[in-house]
Amino acid sequence: MQKNSISESVIRRLPKYYRFLSALERKGQERTSSGELAGHLGFTASQIRQDLGCFGEFGQQGYGYNVTALKKQLKAIIGLDEKRPAIIVGAGNLGRVIAANIDFPSFGFCLSGIFDIDRKICGKEIAGFAVRHMEDLTEFCRENSPVVAALCIPEEAAQKTAEQLISLGIKGFWNFSHCDLTADKDSIIVENVHLGDSLMTLSYRMQ
Amino acid sequence: MQKNSISESVIRRLPKYYRFLSALERKGQERTSSGELAGHLGFTASQIRQDLGCFGEFGQQGYGYNVTALKKQLKAIIGLDEKRPAIIVGAGNLGRVIAANIDFPSFGFCLSGIFDIDRKICGKEIAGFAVRHMEDLTEFCRENSPVVAALCIPEEAAQKTAEQLISLGIKGFWNFSHCDLTADKDSIIVENVHLGDSLMTLSYRMQ
Repeated sequence: MQKNSISESVIRRLPKYYRFLSALERKGQERTSSGELAGHLGFTASQIRQDLGCFGEFGQQGYGYNVTALKKQLKAIIGLDEKRPAIIVGAGNLGRVIAANIDFPSFGFCLSGIFDIDRKICGKEIAGFAVRHMEDLTEFCRENSPVVAALCIPEEAAQKTAEQLISLGIKGFWNFSHCDLTADKDSIIVENVHLGDSLMTLSYRMQ
Repeated sequence: MQKNSISESVIRRLPKYYRFLSALERKGQERTSSGELAGHLGFTASQIRQDLGCFGEFGQQGYGYNVTALKKQLKAIIGLDEKRPAIIVGAGNLGRVIAANIDFPSFGFCLSGIFDIDRKICGKEIAGFAVRHMEDLTEFCRENSPVVAALCIPEEAAQKTAEQLISLGIKGFWNFSHCDLTADKDSIIVENVHLGDSLMTLSYRMQ
């Protein structure tokens, strides 16, 4: 099936499958079934079979899925075997959280630099990287060709900074800046992070 | 329809509807349609009508939805009119990001305290709150009856801390601690935040 024909909802479920399979593998479990996946993830077994069916033939009727094999296939499907250079733009609290807590290589990226506009922060070390000034961005991008930027800057600065980054070769944004970036949807990928959506879900459930 | 019969996927879409309606309202738009919502949110119009249909009758055939009225109804459905007391447990980078960036009242909560185990942090002010030591938690909970805790502590400490919080009356967790909390599912609500899922989605799309 054409990749671009796969629905948003299916794409959003892939990480959940991958995480659950990783947990099963860590526990040493060899097989699983769409029923077991369904029970833990809150989807139906038929939805899971249908989702996986978008990407090929996995598992066997009556046997289920081999945990390690399916995890490996999903890893490739999601692109986690890649090593795409990434940068963090904005080294405030949020940028630091991302740098310190996200293991980029396990998501198919490799962190190659952290940038900020504030000279008081520049030079300080975060997650093994000395924070660079935004002035050095052009040269850095020419030399290191990052393709992804985690945007951890205030909303007001996001659009202009994104345009600069696109002109320097950035193809994808992990956008924490609470704004909808305007970018050419065919060539630039924007993944907006809305922490509030998760808090709204909690609010709904607590009633 | 019974609240607990509403599917996970529908619940997860509610915040997106609410955010989009809020944006339309800010722009001064008075009406919208399931088609417009669908175009912007990447779902189908019929899915949107079906989702909203879980909660009652909204909109009118041929007219669509009144933006402000639908937003107000969704606000009540999600529980955003509430003022449930919340605390943040863990005042490291992540706790600080949450305290500084999340406007709790607009999500139906009111932040009432921030706690940490590290005496070097205690007393420091974050988002208008002096960080309190975990030792003060019991007394604080007795006096302020928080019902929700944002868990921003290391994985190792999460389960034990969650149990303590449950014994002190906490009914819901906004869990940033990268672990699956074991709690009685009927009485305790856990909303796990997996930032990595969003980064995996970006990875998938960048291929």
